[in-house]
Amino acid sequence: MAVIDADHAGRRVRDVVPYLESDAPVVASLSEALAYGPTTLLVGVAPPGGALPPTWREAIVEALERGLDVTSGLHDELARDEAFAAAASRGGARIHDVRVPPAVPLFSGRAYDVAARVVLTVGTDCAVGKMTAALELTRAACARGMRARFVATGQTGIMIAGSGIAIDRVITDFAPGAVEQLVVENAPHADLLFVEGQGGINHPAYGPVTLALLFGAAPDALVLVHLATRSQIEDFGTPMLALPQAIALYEALCDTVKPARVAGIALNTAGLEPSAARRAIAEAAAVTGLPVDDVVRFGPHGLYDAIASKLENKTLPLARMPTPA
Amino acid sequence: MAVIDADHAGRRVRDVVPYLESDAPVVASLSEALAYGPTTLLVGVAPPGGALPPTWREAIVEALERGLDVTSGLHDELARDEAFAAAASRGGARIHDVRVPPAVPLFSGRAYDVAARVVLTVGTDCAVGKMTAALELTRAACARGMRARFVATGQTGIMIAGSGIAIDRVITDFAPGAVEQLVVENAPHADLLFVEGQGGINHPAYGPVTLALLFGAAPDALVLVHLATRSQIEDFGTPMLALPQAIALYEALCDTVKPARVAGIALNTAGLEPSAARRAIAEAAAVTGLPVDDVVRFGPHGLYDAIASKLENKTLPLARMPTPA
Repeated sequence: MAVIDADHAGRRVRDVVPYLESDAPVVASLSEALAYGPTTLLVGVAPPGGALPPTWREAIVEALERGLDVTSGLHDELARDEAFAAAASRGGARIHDVRVPPAVPLFSGRAYDVAARVVLTVGTDCAVGKMTAALELTRAACARGMRARFVATGQTGIMIAGSGIAIDRVITDFAPGAVEQLVVENAPHADLLFVEGQGGINHPAYGPVTLALLFGAAPDALVLVHLATRSQIEDFGTPMLALPQAIALYEALCDTVKPARVAGIALNTAGLEPSAARRAIAEAAAVTGLPVDDVVRFGPHGLYDAIASKLENKTLPLARMPTPA
Repeated sequence: MAVIDADHAGRRVRDVVPYLESDAPVVASLSEALAYGPTTLLVGVAPPGGALPPTWREAIVEALERGLDVTSGLHDELARDEAFAAAASRGGARIHDVRVPPAVPLFSGRAYDVAARVVLTVGTDCAVGKMTAALELTRAACARGMRARFVATGQTGIMIAGSGIAIDRVITDFAPGAVEQLVVENAPHADLLFVEGQGGINHPAYGPVTLALLFGAAPDALVLVHLATRSQIEDFGTPMLALPQAIALYEALCDTVKPARVAGIALNTAGLEPSAARRAIAEAAAVTGLPVDDVVRFGPHGLYDAIASKLENKTLPLARMPTPA
């Protein structure tokens, strides 16, 4: 209905984020947003550590008191906050903490046995477009007549898909098991699963989440996602892996458990002029020898068609399938 | 005081585990153990998933009612169990769930700045001897006059050291931060830290815990631990990495964040005849070009002396140190 963001108040969503088609208004406060008739306040940010910015408390209390449900993806559980719980009770509203995971089993190897082809988006860093690439490729696959499903593994993906598990919130011992459970639950309903990746394999803080996805999803193929304008791991200054290095490292890790290859690259060229974007795509294709495209700027159909045969074939090397005890 | 294990009742610990010097009796039940005057019942097993074996409930209730504290490393929190809490209250006993982690921050890069040299034991699998190697090398370093500390990262290590954090129980997003906190807290008290490793980098279920240690500890050097008689990842049938492969993979991952090399190999030759053990050690040294020894069978001093210069020198390449935001 409306986006609350004081920095951009008075504009429309599509003016702030040019590749979106949404005409929704951007407003400065909850009170202004109420004029558009919302039923839910969605806490849409993901600050490091997942703590609630204190300045937001007031708006959340007001929303709950006015009967709006509140959906949050923060590590902080809003439903356990006494002030929020009381406000929800007064307003007859519900709080949905979508990052809180269900109880999940240990990884068991069940993911090796699904009939659906499993594609995982992996990245060179956080916030480069892994979720968007998975969503867009799912859309392209459906447009081509495949039974394809997006599998959400983070709070924003869960809000979009309506289901999923925030893997970064799961106890580390159980993180691959949580991913496996998502794959096993979704597989019967699709021929092709696009699992939303998280983090980056050499991210000092989030690499373990990435590895949980890589092993837990037991993917048949990978799609590498990279933001063309980024040269360092965000927040840490760790050098970004060059694309061939990133591909080699992800494939080397897969080779130790269940081999999977990078089928293509979703290059996020946001912030580049069109000619620079095309040049960046051509360069990435030249250094990797893989199909490369920007699935937002140019749509996902070109990349999907270029890699469809690699995604749609189940190339599981049975001889290396682990046998659960 | 005594070990409860019905399968070996009537023997002594050193008869069951030949490399231990303990003369403690092995008994069949808690009632028999009480004759030896214990003050604590220590739940010393680590079943997959960390669930309490139901058959143990009775002994735990009895111990608590008789005033014995209970120390447990299971994922299941005994203190939250109503029957146990009531028994503890009746007996005036305490329950210590050592696997439950404290609140920990996100990884921040503080571990890059410690003056102590950080050595992490890494393994080819779970339960190959990473904790033992770290403990034994700490002992050897202290014997050589170094201020060395063992840093516990799992429940058994915590029970031995009296402090630490069970990294596998931490929420995945915070696991590297938990490791970093242990390093930062211990570093001022030592010149050399031996951080207990966990899992194995290609373990489908526990690899993410391993990566949290590898990135969170920001080690200056690694010691690779391998069980000579094991050829597959336990419980999964995943092929074990050959030693040169394991070294290459661990070092490749470190290279992406903060370079560290494998300084030597602690080869666990348990189960081999002495001549076969010596042969296995020689073969591992030949294929890797590294110092190799069994730190239990032959003591830790030989391996420590062989790799001391690599462990004691802070070789941090400053040019690659990440700068936290």
